[in-house]
Amino acid sequence: VVGLGPGAADWRTPEAAAALRSASDLVGYRLYLDLLGPPLAGQARHAYDLGEEAARVRAALDLAAEGRAVALVCSGDPGIYAMAALVFELLDREARADWKRVAITVVPGISALQAAAARIGAPLGHDFCAVSLSDLLTPWPVIERRLEAAADGDFVVALYNPVSKRRSRQLAAAAGILRARRPGDTPVVLARNLGRPGEEIAVIALDELTPDKVDMLTIVLVGSTATRRLARGDGGRWVYTPRGYAAKAGKSSEDAA
Amino acid sequence: VVGLGPGAADWRTPEAAAALRSASDLVGYRLYLDLLGPPLAGQARHAYDLGEEAARVRAALDLAAEGRAVALVCSGDPGIYAMAALVFELLDREARADWKRVAITVVPGISALQAAAARIGAPLGHDFCAVSLSDLLTPWPVIERRLEAAADGDFVVALYNPVSKRRSRQLAAAAGILRARRPGDTPVVLARNLGRPGEEIAVIALDELTPDKVDMLTIVLVGSTATRRLARGDGGRWVYTPRGYAAKAGKSSEDAA
Repeated sequence: VVGLGPGAADWRTPEAAAALRSASDLVGYRLYLDLLGPPLAGQARHAYDLGEEAARVRAALDLAAEGRAVALVCSGDPGIYAMAALVFELLDREARADWKRVAITVVPGISALQAAAARIGAPLGHDFCAVSLSDLLTPWPVIERRLEAAADGDFVVALYNPVSKRRSRQLAAAAGILRARRPGDTPVVLARNLGRPGEEIAVIALDELTPDKVDMLTIVLVGSTATRRLARGDGGRWVYTPRGYAAKAGKSSEDAA
Repeated sequence: VVGLGPGAADWRTPEAAAALRSASDLVGYRLYLDLLGPPLAGQARHAYDLGEEAARVRAALDLAAEGRAVALVCSGDPGIYAMAALVFELLDREARADWKRVAITVVPGISALQAAAARIGAPLGHDFCAVSLSDLLTPWPVIERRLEAAADGDFVVALYNPVSKRRSRQLAAAAGILRARRPGDTPVVLARNLGRPGEEIAVIALDELTPDKVDMLTIVLVGSTATRRLARGDGGRWVYTPRGYAAKAGKSSEDAA
């Protein structure tokens, strides 16, 4: 189960690259397989459309159970809102003896929240959480409770799946929940197409966070009450969340960083 | 500001490897520089001890302001409990004109929570948060409030800096806060030396989470109420948090995974 990272091959780990090279079969969402370019000689390519997640995983497990070396390809990190959890969920629920014999390796990758953070500075510099706003698979009250907890805990919040073609209400509700507990000028980072042509990154205020500014490919990072903007030498701006070191510069830390 | 990932060179991105190769100066915690092996010909190495974070960052910015190509080296992801936030914090607070002219790139890396998750399955498969238990730089009431919020929101919780040589009370308190809101048999993943010789990974129950099982190099992942154990074919076990796809296998998802 291979994480490609957020797009650029520069962000793909050697472990992921090696897993792709040694695979007999590449299974994944068509767009991600296309990003990899043509398969190597002898490699079979099994491309799926969006919304066929369970079919993709079943196909990958079936091929692996036949003895093939299968790379189930995900963008970002397979363990963060991608395919790894579904692999184990299907293994667990369907309890198929042939699948159970398959040796599985999860190959981690850079997730969108990390790429977005790196491009804009260090907004995740202190405690943070990740919440998916997709209510296709999670009841909205569960998501709402998570957002309220994230607001109560003053976490920096990474919003995955902020909107879809048919769904924008959730982002407006999330912005409202967070706005009730942090200032309207809290920095919000909108990042799109990270590491791909057309990469866009913008910083807006929480007050300005409306669904029309965001699409399916955007990741949204909402700062905590400690998150700050900082002018860059080149006219742009950084966003960072201090961990507090500078405030206690005279005090020694015993924790590794 | 370069993230090495959790140890294994296999988890180091090509962007990070290139930044290390092209640096004139490597600045970082001695242990991480040692892991990189000897510097390339002509590269200067500036090794610091634990607890000298601000000194490391100042040295890196001073060298860069002199026109050197500096790699400030961090383990994991520089943006997640590592040096990136401190770079921007010092830039902001000290407002030095020479530092402001320095061009900064943050190079993301695989963080310990991702490596631990990948090794054990997909425990971060749904919404999660990261909390550092170090109260050297953050007042304990703030950390406690975050833990309570994480418990209220039923997040999977990654605990960074769970203990130190002088500090173990915080982990016991964190376990207590989480145990009040989730079952005692909730899976907890303890991972140590990820991607390095001596890698250890264990799964215990939340009821068994006591400071003596954990050291400074351990990352702790506490499952949510949905997190499950699954027997592996080889006698070991996986841990995963379902996202809910399998429960709605007939329902199409429009969100990319």
